[in-house]
Amino acid sequence: MFANTPEPPYYAVIFTSHKSGHEGYDETSERMLELARTRDGFLGIESARGDDGVGITVSYWRDLDSIARWKADGEHRTAQQRGRTEWYSRYVTRVCKVERAYEFSA
Amino acid sequence: MFANTPEPPYYAVIFTSHKSGHEGYDETSERMLELARTRDGFLGIESARGDDGVGITVSYWRDLDSIARWKADGEHRTAQQRGRTEWYSRYVTRVCKVERAYEFSA
Repeated sequence: MFANTPEPPYYAVIFTSHKSGHEGYDETSERMLELARTRDGFLGIESARGDDGVGITVSYWRDLDSIARWKADGEHRTAQQRGRTEWYSRYVTRVCKVERAYEFSA
Repeated sequence: MFANTPEPPYYAVIFTSHKSGHEGYDETSERMLELARTRDGFLGIESARGDDGVGITVSYWRDLDSIARWKADGEHRTAQQRGRTEWYSRYVTRVCKVERAYEFSA
């Protein structure tokens, strides 16, 4: 899944996680994606998880305001809380400004 | 695999790819990692690839100069060329400035 982002600058949230719990994860993950897509400033998302349980999800946003609003969203906050207690043994979130982007397509 | 990055600001290169070829990939990937680790300004790397062939690799760097030097490295350029002709059907590279980072550990 590739995100169709516009020309930079825009923002990226890199979420690297190690998942150890699974119950209810897929439904919540699906629901969060569905919600995020409706948010002002959401540009797209890319995600991959390997067999070792380590996953990287990168969501793209127009600006820091739209990231802050999404972080503070009520339903999303509940999901974040479940993430800490039920699903993730560890995660790192990095907020970045995308300065350049280039693409290759065969 | 989590990267032990310092306090922001620093830089991230987000490499999202769809891999369709495999021959020689693992050896080259391993060798590039080994090389990158020796480079001035290299801070760490995180990588995940799912069963759908889509992978995300994020490498972290001190500054834009160290990213530019790594991009221009001779052995790395040869690997990039093989990537385009042999392994990847598509990829997007995004160069970003990491402005904030926060971590959770259970």
